[in-house]
Amino acid sequence: MQWYVVASVLTILTSSQGILTTLSQSNGGYKYDYATVPFLAEVFKLVVSCVMLWKEYQKSPPPKMTTEWRSVRLYPIPSIIYLIHNNVQFATLTYVDTSTYQIMGNLKIVTTAILFRLFLKRKLSTLQWMAIVLLAIGTTTSQVKGCGEASCDSVFSSPIQGYMLGILSACLSALAGVYTEFLMKKNNDSLYWQNIQLYAFGSLFNMARLILDDFRSGFEKGPWWQRLLNGYNITTWMVVLNLGSTGLLVSWLMKYADNIVKVYSTSMAMLLTMVLSVFLFNFKPTLQLFLGIFVCMMSLHMYFAPPSVLVDLPLTTKTTPESIVEVSVDRKTDS
Amino acid sequence: MQWYVVASVLTILTSSQGILTTLSQSNGGYKYDYATVPFLAEVFKLVVSCVMLWKEYQKSPPPKMTTEWRSVRLYPIPSIIYLIHNNVQFATLTYVDTSTYQIMGNLKIVTTAILFRLFLKRKLSTLQWMAIVLLAIGTTTSQVKGCGEASCDSVFSSPIQGYMLGILSACLSALAGVYTEFLMKKNNDSLYWQNIQLYAFGSLFNMARLILDDFRSGFEKGPWWQRLLNGYNITTWMVVLNLGSTGLLVSWLMKYADNIVKVYSTSMAMLLTMVLSVFLFNFKPTLQLFLGIFVCMMSLHMYFAPPSVLVDLPLTTKTTPESIVEVSVDRKTDS
Repeated sequence: MQWYVVASVLTILTSSQGILTTLSQSNGGYKYDYATVPFLAEVFKLVVSCVMLWKEYQKSPPPKMTTEWRSVRLYPIPSIIYLIHNNVQFATLTYVDTSTYQIMGNLKIVTTAILFRLFLKRKLSTLQWMAIVLLAIGTTTSQVKGCGEASCDSVFSSPIQGYMLGILSACLSALAGVYTEFLMKKNNDSLYWQNIQLYAFGSLFNMARLILDDFRSGFEKGPWWQRLLNGYNITTWMVVLNLGSTGLLVSWLMKYADNIVKVYSTSMAMLLTMVLSVFLFNFKPTLQLFLGIFVCMMSLHMYFAPPSVLVDLPLTTKTTPESIVEVSVDRKTDS
Repeated sequence: MQWYVVASVLTILTSSQGILTTLSQSNGGYKYDYATVPFLAEVFKLVVSCVMLWKEYQKSPPPKMTTEWRSVRLYPIPSIIYLIHNNVQFATLTYVDTSTYQIMGNLKIVTTAILFRLFLKRKLSTLQWMAIVLLAIGTTTSQVKGCGEASCDSVFSSPIQGYMLGILSACLSALAGVYTEFLMKKNNDSLYWQNIQLYAFGSLFNMARLILDDFRSGFEKGPWWQRLLNGYNITTWMVVLNLGSTGLLVSWLMKYADNIVKVYSTSMAMLLTMVLSVFLFNFKPTLQLFLGIFVCMMSLHMYFAPPSVLVDLPLTTKTTPESIVEVSVDRKTDS
């Protein structure tokens, strides 16, 4: 499968996630316990990966699997990073309002590229760095509050702690992504075996969270396994299946493409959600939404188009230098 | 002189123009007749060009001058285009509000590039086209109205005639620029001789406008030559000298650089004015101003940096292909 097909499907599913989640609400709130959704999604991914691994086992050669503790012990790390990230996120929101928080979320595009460069030692051209900064600017532009919006908190008016935590949050989110890519690519184990390890720990961490919620609420609504499917309807199940499927696609991209492809995919999904909201929920489109979409499209083309297409002046296209072609092929094969 | 030095000075002078004009107002209005400013600026440019041409005459070889009517008759054309443009501008403003008008003004960046390609047959690489679109997006972003601004007219709510006239206005403005570049480059006449022809017609057209105003107002304030310097103070004279100087620099750029350099220069000036206004007039900076500035900076680098700097992955910098270097040199010499 080509990475851009997977990335496109991921974009569509990620953008439906926002819309399905909105549709699953009734009267602006959730009838079900939202914390059960990621848990069930982890279980779904675990089951799918088990089935796929079992299928691979039927064929020869059997899938490659590293089962040493030295390797397995690395798989809970992404879950641990996400756990810390969730708490930092929570702390950030005590200092900044939600729209400033959303704006700062775009920082993770840039932090991902930086960690991608530093930890995975992946080189990017000047143009690709510029494309990444433009992607972050484009997504931010689309979120700029319109004239006449109800709340007008300025993004420059939060306490310094809020910004520091926002930056930390962006770094942790990037670290989780980059670490997962490192895990998936460090050996040529079967993708499904790697997934099983990731999602087994993921399910455990999510279960721990549900148990913790139980203790916090003093078992008011009964233990988690009893209230697990309370208030679930068909839309809620679609939210679960959708979240699980996006997880599986991200995992595939981490092994066969990279974090930057994922970042583009989720950023485009954010814009697609905003455009769909105009039609589905009668959102009023702003000029900045269009400007942001344009900037992101430019960024996408700048990052992924072969350099020879971008810089060759029409006059010199006949004499495409071989080394440029090499560069473009280089990038295609490693992403 | 290097074109980028001239372009930088033009940026600074153009941005001071906005600030000086604001400073020359008293109680939000002009004490002097604003229509006299461009007239005196044309006369100033004409005088400077005459002095410079006379100086060139002292040296040998004497400056090259084409004095045939076939050539001279082309020089009023830019003034005529500007005259039509001013009237279209006026008509546009009867359909759209000033902020929509300002936003649409950014279209001339793109129309200039299109006419530059079509009429002057100048080739641009894909990356340069993208840079130009990004420049227009960046300047537009910086002008997006902030949350909580007094008037909230949407840019999408004007009648269709307003948009059509806005597009026509952008085309006329681009046409004037491109035509002037064609005039300045069509032969290797002395720049000052070409200037004299341009500004002589410019002075005449501006004088005609003052006379027309006299007739319109029924000579209420006396004929134009009597009220010419009414209400002038030192700031007003600085506005005149500044406008004249920017005109001379634009003329130089049209001969030795090109319209795209001018477009970048004036766009950067617009952003610089907004930044200076934050300090001088206590304007509240918006997030979109910063985003717009970032996009324009990226665009500047994309357009003018040598392609080899932009697309070479760090790994391959040692083997810079000769043909890329050629491409970059090509562009430098023709701009």
